[in-house]
Amino acid sequence: MNYNTYCVIMAGGIGNRFWPVSNHRCPKQFLDILHSGKSFIRQTYERISQIFPDNHIFIVTGKEYEEITQKQLPEIPVENILKEPYVRNTATCIAYAAYKIKDINPDAIMVIIPSDHFICNDYAYLQNLQEGMHFVSIHGGLLTIGITPTRAETEYGYIQVKSKDNSQKISAVKTFTEKPSAEIAQMFYDSDEFLWNAGIFIWCVKDIIEEFKTHMYDLHVLFTTASKLNTPAEPLFIQSVYGQCHNISIDVGIMEKSQHVYVLKGNFGWSDVGTWHAFHALCEKDEHNNVSNSGKVILNESNNCIVNTPPRKNVVIQGIDNLIIAEKDNYLMICNRKDEEKIKRFEKLFRKKQ
Amino acid sequence: MNYNTYCVIMAGGIGNRFWPVSNHRCPKQFLDILHSGKSFIRQTYERISQIFPDNHIFIVTGKEYEEITQKQLPEIPVENILKEPYVRNTATCIAYAAYKIKDINPDAIMVIIPSDHFICNDYAYLQNLQEGMHFVSIHGGLLTIGITPTRAETEYGYIQVKSKDNSQKISAVKTFTEKPSAEIAQMFYDSDEFLWNAGIFIWCVKDIIEEFKTHMYDLHVLFTTASKLNTPAEPLFIQSVYGQCHNISIDVGIMEKSQHVYVLKGNFGWSDVGTWHAFHALCEKDEHNNVSNSGKVILNESNNCIVNTPPRKNVVIQGIDNLIIAEKDNYLMICNRKDEEKIKRFEKLFRKKQ
Repeated sequence: MNYNTYCVIMAGGIGNRFWPVSNHRCPKQFLDILHSGKSFIRQTYERISQIFPDNHIFIVTGKEYEEITQKQLPEIPVENILKEPYVRNTATCIAYAAYKIKDINPDAIMVIIPSDHFICNDYAYLQNLQEGMHFVSIHGGLLTIGITPTRAETEYGYIQVKSKDNSQKISAVKTFTEKPSAEIAQMFYDSDEFLWNAGIFIWCVKDIIEEFKTHMYDLHVLFTTASKLNTPAEPLFIQSVYGQCHNISIDVGIMEKSQHVYVLKGNFGWSDVGTWHAFHALCEKDEHNNVSNSGKVILNESNNCIVNTPPRKNVVIQGIDNLIIAEKDNYLMICNRKDEEKIKRFEKLFRKKQ
Repeated sequence: MNYNTYCVIMAGGIGNRFWPVSNHRCPKQFLDILHSGKSFIRQTYERISQIFPDNHIFIVTGKEYEEITQKQLPEIPVENILKEPYVRNTATCIAYAAYKIKDINPDAIMVIIPSDHFICNDYAYLQNLQEGMHFVSIHGGLLTIGITPTRAETEYGYIQVKSKDNSQKISAVKTFTEKPSAEIAQMFYDSDEFLWNAGIFIWCVKDIIEEFKTHMYDLHVLFTTASKLNTPAEPLFIQSVYGQCHNISIDVGIMEKSQHVYVLKGNFGWSDVGTWHAFHALCEKDEHNNVSNSGKVILNESNNCIVNTPPRKNVVIQGIDNLIIAEKDNYLMICNRKDEEKIKRFEKLFRKKQ
């Protein structure tokens, strides 16, 4: 155990892609949509708590999710739950954690992980994190974890490695690319130079702060001017800082600009479970490629459907292909799978209507 | 008011075509699926009570629907609710009413009507019934009401008139045809000789009993041997009779065989509302030909759908064509409109599964 290592779990998602199963009251990270018996965030915590002590684990989440976070992760000290007053994307979220942790331990090494991803092999995952921490503690720089693509996925970001030497586990990064078109995704997949961006970051806290100073100086000023981090005035201070921050991802704000970016090839089996499509890919299917979460669902002459309904609901689906059928509480959504990207707008549409 | 006229409302439907909105606990005739403010049977009663006194109105329904019938039609004397122990189709149902009414009044004229049809023009309907009663009181015979087809419908039975003289309101019948194929329906529609069979019958009770004696002698024997009709032992007697009856419609058992069948051309605007398709035809549609029963349903880029969900349920439907979406209690059905005929099997499928 290295006493300088810290883990930050990003849990700021608002759950709109899996609406109505996931929603603003209980976003995906707090749910068990894969029916593993534990929510995503609980699984994430149990996984990383094997190598981080509880008081070195921080959660960054929306202010409104403090209670559910405490309830699902009672082991985490309450002061380690960083509450965001507004949704401000990953650059702000990571800056908050970085400046706070630097204040506690200037020699800290930070691992930043999403709260709602699926990891197949925990052991390989933890080994990769440790290799990454070891690397940055010696070489410095910003390390991200890349996943060898298994298909020409258009829903993920891609990382291009500088070296074509595939035997190297860690290499410098040439480019970052946001979600590509199908054609470009195919080129990436065929080229052997691209990895999926898993949204996992490892660095020394002093190095990321140098990068903020260089590439996002406004943000650096906001977090360091009359800082009240780690004092009783922290919530008010954060309220003010977040009010002035822009909505920028760490990829766009730092990773794409920095000269010291590395990628470690992860080999733990990964999915961001970011869409119903990804969910479908992970789940057990019937002989007609349907995924259903409940034994009370009867699918007749139907193919490629995704059904997620309350456990006691009796459902018959007849003669239908390529639908997502999701129900929770008093909401029912029936969506053509080709229109999946529109789901994230539905919750708002309803709030407006009511 | 003719003191010999009686009306029999057939309310034996088991509600499987509109499952789960209609079901064995509360079949279609007791529901208000058209949102008129009143159930079908209540509307039927209020319509015919303009020309029949309450004690001359009989309801034939399943034993299990006695309570709901009394609740929806409190004006009807309880002894006028004829309870069928088993589902035995219209020949048995009509025989039960006919032998019972003959016992009360051998000179009775009977009008037999379904409980769950849509009638557009009540005044014209009642006029047609009265014309029909007048006709049979003079000419005898079995009179049915036919509707001039407005399309080549394959879901209705057809009646072919003997005379091609379209000016006659009542004419002898040449043939009865059950639901035809699309091709034959088109020929019928084009020929001008065919009317839709609306399932409405008018005759003197003594004439229909003569016909039972001739064409369904077994049934005649069952109802006349040691009859306990209109006595306290009627339920036991009926239990025994129904136990021995076959499942035959009045069309097959009598109308197709009798030599004394007439048809009166109805002009009141009619639908049997027998399918979701017929329901769709009757209801107001949005600009994409969707029918929805609730303001809480949002239909995006969807066409030709039928939605019938609980009034407070929030529903989003995205990118979908030609579906029937129906929810009630703990049951949800999503069915391709081309598979509508399979709906009637779903309730049983579930009872088996549970």
